[in-house]
Amino acid sequence: MRGVMLAAAAARLAVAARAFSTSTGGGGAGGGVSMVQGASRGIGLEFVRQLLRRSEQDRVIATCRAPDSATELLKLKEEHAPGRLTVLPLDVTDESTIEAAATKIGESHGSLDLLINASGILSIPNMLQPETTLSKVQKSSLLLAYEHMWPLLKVGGRLETGRGFSLVANMSARVSSIGDNGLGGWHSYRASKTALNQLTKTISVEFARKDNIACILLHPGTVDTDLSRPFQRNVPKGKLFTREFSVQKLLSVIDNTKKSDNGKFFAWDGQEIPW
Amino acid sequence: MRGVMLAAAAARLAVAARAFSTSTGGGGAGGGVSMVQGASRGIGLEFVRQLLRRSEQDRVIATCRAPDSATELLKLKEEHAPGRLTVLPLDVTDESTIEAAATKIGESHGSLDLLINASGILSIPNMLQPETTLSKVQKSSLLLAYEHMWPLLKVGGRLETGRGFSLVANMSARVSSIGDNGLGGWHSYRASKTALNQLTKTISVEFARKDNIACILLHPGTVDTDLSRPFQRNVPKGKLFTREFSVQKLLSVIDNTKKSDNGKFFAWDGQEIPW
Repeated sequence: MRGVMLAAAAARLAVAARAFSTSTGGGGAGGGVSMVQGASRGIGLEFVRQLLRRSEQDRVIATCRAPDSATELLKLKEEHAPGRLTVLPLDVTDESTIEAAATKIGESHGSLDLLINASGILSIPNMLQPETTLSKVQKSSLLLAYEHMWPLLKVGGRLETGRGFSLVANMSARVSSIGDNGLGGWHSYRASKTALNQLTKTISVEFARKDNIACILLHPGTVDTDLSRPFQRNVPKGKLFTREFSVQKLLSVIDNTKKSDNGKFFAWDGQEIPW
Repeated sequence: MRGVMLAAAAARLAVAARAFSTSTGGGGAGGGVSMVQGASRGIGLEFVRQLLRRSEQDRVIATCRAPDSATELLKLKEEHAPGRLTVLPLDVTDESTIEAAATKIGESHGSLDLLINASGILSIPNMLQPETTLSKVQKSSLLLAYEHMWPLLKVGGRLETGRGFSLVANMSARVSSIGDNGLGGWHSYRASKTALNQLTKTISVEFARKDNIACILLHPGTVDTDLSRPFQRNVPKGKLFTREFSVQKLLSVIDNTKKSDNGKFFAWDGQEIPW
């Protein structure tokens, strides 16, 4: 009985927190800790920039392979109050750096409310012969990252700081959709993002079973970055987004994510994308 | 006008051919050429066995990495009339062997009506950093295989030998379905098969645009093989299939595949599986 009452109270609090969060522009009632992995440039960098513009209480952790040469990140760090932006080295292909980053975040922040994976986090050993992996789950860098960040996510997402659950948002792309694939081409890029979708879905199922963590996948639209430049002439007019616009939209999707959206794949405009 | 009449005649012929095909147990009106890649054991070997039981005119090409030690295949070769079964070396990770096999098949058979990929054909370089592959499509062994077999498939699939189009059937597994993933676990195996689904779909779109070739994905059920042995205690009673049963069902799915099924994913019982 006490549990039921507590649950009802928690639900009321959640609604209140959400209303407050929306009224302050989303992203938590203040004091939340967000981490952006792959933050030195492009969409990752823009996420850091926009997250820092939110509540003065919000703190952001930006990771990239070589912080020393991440001039834009270091500039942002100078522009903001001490402690609001932490820049840490993290190479998703090197477990020791993931572990070190997690330890540092644990010491300095104690928890994570939002984890945005903006750059390639997928490595699947033994893709050559998938059958051989059947008997032992091999670790991808995605799994390593979750393993180390999981204790921080587990204690994050409190109502006071926002949505009432921790959220992991992985950057995918619409071309990863099998159902939506009517054009062909881009074989490896498609397949690797499709594999990322499956891994994220798999992890979302596992997290949700035990912990108050949700995972979603995001499609940023076609964004004007170094990466998309060679393909921009094929993009219809008005469909090539600035990083600012795309990230603004993606943060709005993140803010509107409910626990029941766990494991889903959303486009920049909030539309769900089929697998 | 002439085209329309020819098309109508072709459609009638196709119906007749299908009826005949069904009456002879499926698999073509005789004289078809089927290739099974990964044929030395398990489901691949069973496909070879059952394909050879069909029309005496049907010919089968079985490929595996080391034909000399593929005793079961060599035994089958002895049991059948000369020329009915050809055993060729093919290692999907070694392009020169794919090319050599394609050349040999071109010389001896001239075309392919059915290609069954029964073993791991997936290798995606640079999975570590998917973004880097955006600007240049990198070749996976799957693509290499298609590239070399494509000219043979292109001239195969004639009405006289069966279905009126060539068919590629790739062995996937239900755990590759993202939409169907309610249990988690098996991360790399799931992700690599999901990537295979996306690659097959991509290629199916490209083939269908230019040629009379369809591609499908198949889920064999849980089959009693060396591969599944460690997991068999989790399989509900009556759901662990013999290879004979599974392949019989899969051949029936293959026989019933229409051109409009291009790019779809079927279970052993013909049910379509969501992405």
